[in-house]
Amino acid sequence: MFPRGRLAFFVTSNLHKFNEARQVFSEYKVATAMLKIKAVEIQDDNLENIAKASAIDAVKTCGLPIIVEDAGLFIEALNGFPGPYSSYVYRTIGTIGILKLMKNVDKRDAYFQSVVAFNSPEEAPKCFHGKAKGKISLEERGSLGFGFDPIFEPSGGGNRTFAEMTTNEKNEHSHRAGALRKFAKWYTSGSKRRF
Amino acid sequence: MFPRGRLAFFVTSNLHKFNEARQVFSEYKVATAMLKIKAVEIQDDNLENIAKASAIDAVKTCGLPIIVEDAGLFIEALNGFPGPYSSYVYRTIGTIGILKLMKNVDKRDAYFQSVVAFNSPEEAPKCFHGKAKGKISLEERGSLGFGFDPIFEPSGGGNRTFAEMTTNEKNEHSHRAGALRKFAKWYTSGSKRRF
Repeated sequence: MFPRGRLAFFVTSNLHKFNEARQVFSEYKVATAMLKIKAVEIQDDNLENIAKASAIDAVKTCGLPIIVEDAGLFIEALNGFPGPYSSYVYRTIGTIGILKLMKNVDKRDAYFQSVVAFNSPEEAPKCFHGKAKGKISLEERGSLGFGFDPIFEPSGGGNRTFAEMTTNEKNEHSHRAGALRKFAKWYTSGSKRRF
Repeated sequence: MFPRGRLAFFVTSNLHKFNEARQVFSEYKVATAMLKIKAVEIQDDNLENIAKASAIDAVKTCGLPIIVEDAGLFIEALNGFPGPYSSYVYRTIGTIGILKLMKNVDKRDAYFQSVVAFNSPEEAPKCFHGKAKGKISLEERGSLGFGFDPIFEPSGGGNRTFAEMTTNEKNEHSHRAGALRKFAKWYTSGSKRRF
């Protein structure tokens, strides 16, 4: 069967996310495989509900133990916008749109939130959370990473945006790495898993 | 059983939508009942896919012939934003946010799109479309209607926004009324329905 605890199937079509996961998992000696299958994504203001529904749907499709990850950028002055719909907002109004909405706004606090949902044919889905607090920058900076990385300065990152960091550096601060590490610790501990 | 073709169950928790439907349906002598059940809403850039998935889920829950309606405001200069996520965008950045994004933008063309999905335990889901072309106003005007009505001027509406129109007047121009009328015509004709 599968080398459980040693191999994680990551349901995603986002190569950036996959590469971030691969680096984090290597710290735990967990190999990861990218599984490009279509999993339903529901509309919900709560990331955990979205990730959990996708994980349940993905297992129905593939019958494997898998993880999915859902993330969002929550800007306090914009009542949490773009939140769970960050991907759509990025594809339409983009970083320029966010900067326009934040023009003349002093309170620039924001956070990235990530939820990793694990599900398998044998178990109920389980979620792991990660959060990166920071600020929306005044202008785009950097060309690494993806999505809203060029306008997000994580706390403790020396005023650099995520897009000014290598994947390794980003993984020291990022919401996604935080959630993936929690999952990897659990996945390799074996204590709570039936397999 | 149900007085089919004479009664439509409308799955919604939005009283404004329900009242618009009630007025349109009265033109066709179709009564309507508001059914407040939770139906899944998926993330998809295509409104028809969202409405159809909700209609399928709602019938699983209630076992009745029902309609659901999904709508969005698509602004050309913003690559279709806020589109299928109009409700979330309204709740977070609101009309003020849209006006800020549209500041100094000359091309103000936009349209509202509506999809009414009918589904029943006996049939495959069927969708009806409506569209209202217009422009994003320079400022909010009017207090009627709901959502982005105060910043949308439908073509042929005499430069008034939807929020400056009574429900009857809005129904002469609106995307939702257009889709509901197509459904009502079909629903009362009986030609394509098995019941």
